[in-house]
Amino acid sequence: MEKPWATLGADLHLELTGPGLRRGLTDALREAVRSGRLAPGTRLPSSRSLAADLGVARNTVADAYADLVAEGWLTARQGSGTRVATGVPPTPFGQWGSALPRGSERAAPHPREPGRLAHDLVPGTPDLASFPRSEWLRAARRALAAAPNDALGYGDPRGRAELRTALAGYLSRARGVRADPDRIVVCAGFAQGLKLLGEVLRDRGQGPSAAPGPLAVESYGLDVHWNIAERAGLRTVPLPFDDLGTRTDALTDESAVLLSPAHQFPMGGALRPEGRAAVVDWARRTGGLVLEDDYDGEFRYDRQPVGALQDLDPDHVVYLGTASKALAPGLRLGWMVLPQSLVPEVVAVRQGGGWTGGVLDQLTLAEFIASGAYDRHVRAARLRYRRRRDALVEAVASRAPRVRVRGIAAGLHAVLELPPGTEASVVRAAAWQQLAVHGLARFRHPDAATEPLDALVVGYGTPPDHAWAGALEALCRVLP
Amino acid sequence: MEKPWATLGADLHLELTGPGLRRGLTDALREAVRSGRLAPGTRLPSSRSLAADLGVARNTVADAYADLVAEGWLTARQGSGTRVATGVPPTPFGQWGSALPRGSERAAPHPREPGRLAHDLVPGTPDLASFPRSEWLRAARRALAAAPNDALGYGDPRGRAELRTALAGYLSRARGVRADPDRIVVCAGFAQGLKLLGEVLRDRGQGPSAAPGPLAVESYGLDVHWNIAERAGLRTVPLPFDDLGTRTDALTDESAVLLSPAHQFPMGGALRPEGRAAVVDWARRTGGLVLEDDYDGEFRYDRQPVGALQDLDPDHVVYLGTASKALAPGLRLGWMVLPQSLVPEVVAVRQGGGWTGGVLDQLTLAEFIASGAYDRHVRAARLRYRRRRDALVEAVASRAPRVRVRGIAAGLHAVLELPPGTEASVVRAAAWQQLAVHGLARFRHPDAATEPLDALVVGYGTPPDHAWAGALEALCRVLP
Repeated sequence: MEKPWATLGADLHLELTGPGLRRGLTDALREAVRSGRLAPGTRLPSSRSLAADLGVARNTVADAYADLVAEGWLTARQGSGTRVATGVPPTPFGQWGSALPRGSERAAPHPREPGRLAHDLVPGTPDLASFPRSEWLRAARRALAAAPNDALGYGDPRGRAELRTALAGYLSRARGVRADPDRIVVCAGFAQGLKLLGEVLRDRGQGPSAAPGPLAVESYGLDVHWNIAERAGLRTVPLPFDDLGTRTDALTDESAVLLSPAHQFPMGGALRPEGRAAVVDWARRTGGLVLEDDYDGEFRYDRQPVGALQDLDPDHVVYLGTASKALAPGLRLGWMVLPQSLVPEVVAVRQGGGWTGGVLDQLTLAEFIASGAYDRHVRAARLRYRRRRDALVEAVASRAPRVRVRGIAAGLHAVLELPPGTEASVVRAAAWQQLAVHGLARFRHPDAATEPLDALVVGYGTPPDHAWAGALEALCRVLP
Repeated sequence: MEKPWATLGADLHLELTGPGLRRGLTDALREAVRSGRLAPGTRLPSSRSLAADLGVARNTVADAYADLVAEGWLTARQGSGTRVATGVPPTPFGQWGSALPRGSERAAPHPREPGRLAHDLVPGTPDLASFPRSEWLRAARRALAAAPNDALGYGDPRGRAELRTALAGYLSRARGVRADPDRIVVCAGFAQGLKLLGEVLRDRGQGPSAAPGPLAVESYGLDVHWNIAERAGLRTVPLPFDDLGTRTDALTDESAVLLSPAHQFPMGGALRPEGRAAVVDWARRTGGLVLEDDYDGEFRYDRQPVGALQDLDPDHVVYLGTASKALAPGLRLGWMVLPQSLVPEVVAVRQGGGWTGGVLDQLTLAEFIASGAYDRHVRAARLRYRRRRDALVEAVASRAPRVRVRGIAAGLHAVLELPPGTEASVVRAAAWQQLAVHGLARFRHPDAATEPLDALVVGYGTPPDHAWAGALEALCRVLP
């Protein structure tokens, strides 16, 4: 069972060349476990010896191990070392980097069984137990009864007209988006929208003009997004981030910029009016494209929602929304509202094959929105998440007064600022407690110049209602 | 309204560089109409003058016009020239190159209104009116009731385990595929599967080894498939095709080969045993990959179904199937059974974002298969299509005895061999009759050395039952 560890790096084809050694190592190890190349129960080498073997810092290996323990792929026990978890099927791992076998809360009899996690506070997934199954099925029945036969054929590459029409009305009303069904393209979640736009920008760069400029991103964000852009050949460069938020006034000759203006992910602030003006000014001046990631714009608690940036300049801003937070990621439904001039380019890429999603869920979501069920569901969810947020803020204030909670005006997650130098140890402690929670470091762009901040990114939307109190308690236990 | 036609080529940004001048021109014109750059009612220049302007053969322009008339984007009337159709919304166009506004048969009051087509015999779409809506909804209800919450999250990049398990059983039983759920990847139709594999082959070519060899294809096939491969950087080279079918013994140093062994599309034959042996031998010898497109393997009428080629060598053959023919393209559900060694590479590409489809239809199809509803539906559909095929063969024999019908042992289409030199005129005559039907020429690879054959590819599965007799009558009227 024991491997010749001196050649582990070669054996696993570890290619530590991506943006971030730690991420590369984590991904490679996860893939090795997932694919079965590392069998369940296999003992991994100590972080010291693997680090020496790979020529990387020991902390890099220790952090990768801690991440994978948190995700449930590895187990770490005192006296037994780090091992590949048993009973982990090659199963779900989220867009957001979580590999937690969800539904594990249902396996209550053995909450600490290796490979199972008791609590999940990884951000990015809403409470899946509250998905409105009956309402959704009723909408599906009505939608399918009303659909013409041609709806079931190869369809419009922009997605079903019914859904684009419903979205145009909803986005205009709820998010202040200047939307027109003809300029909306339905896509399989935000990730596909970004991928499509990345290919469009790449194609532009292959024309007679020069290669495309890089994609500006925020200093904090999601590595899956950076990877999508880089796979399309777009280098990502982080904008400065300071007390005022993302410095869009630093934009220069980039081909596009990816922002989350209503609720910066994961830091939580809204882009200030000066920042909004600066980015629109940049776009008009340079012809650059603004990609507005409005992933959770519906969930704002204390004030009026922050309207979409797209309203300021629909000719330069692509608005991207998703049903992943308001309903469920499994629907794989997102949408883009495009500048008119971009529609033919996006359509041309989509006609390249393999991009369009199933129509039945599109028709159902259209009916769900039109019937008012979507608004009702969002209102109920907003109330649920707001209560959780209040409980989180209160618990942290009383149990860990040294920890500052920020980014709480909106969304399904909060940032817990930790005393300097403690993030890695808190994440490791959480893993030992079978609590999945991510440190802020994994959301920091590898090239970010911003001074690192020790913090946790707590997804309080993730657990089902019955598991929320336990998850919060587990979190408080590991806070300093 | 009239455009300065001398600059039409420049105005429309026509880039006639793809594989096939005619296809490039057709696509560019279609896009111009679809995007509104050519307004409804606009009169197009004569084929002679546009040909001169673009420096191409007049027939190329005439053929492109005829295709677009057949698809409903243009209208051609004696005395009025060729114009952009009015009342054509920017609407559906199929994977198979058809832009017919489907459901048009329901607009019976104005069957000859410009932009509307009375009859549709374009291959590639099953009878959408027979989609089992009630059965499907029942399965959806059962599936959603049984699904765990985690099914609604970001899922396994291979697709839901329930569906992969159901498919493994079905494919083994019905198609002789050696399937294992762990090696199945659910994808958004065949096109996405091909695109994923194309990216895997491209990524291999970017490694330290040399660039990937080209993709061998059949002399007859679908341009959308060739385009997907070429967009991924894989040149497509056609294998010879003769009376014995596709000559797989001509394979040399290609990186992969795309075949439809059970029912060559569109010619209709099955790959002979010698051909099957030759391709497997080539794959073993060279490490090349065989992509088996089993698009309509369920529909075989006169004999036992031809088993999957994959059974001969699951380590070198990727089996690709789809629900687009047996159920409906709108589901966007296909599947690949991969060699074990390919699974990590395909999963890695899918983790690149934007590839996974909605889980609800996946869960529903799993239930649909497990409950036996899929088998019942396929049996009923097979009977329906067989009756249509028999009617087609009979009608052609009595009304157009010079026309030979081939490729009728299986599937949803037949090839009608025409007297030499008559294909283009028959297709044009059909367009004038508001009958959408494709000539064989559009399915011929631009580099094919095979002697061209004049023929129609008739999709007899496409019309709904009530429109079938009328479509067949319209077809007979244009046959020589």
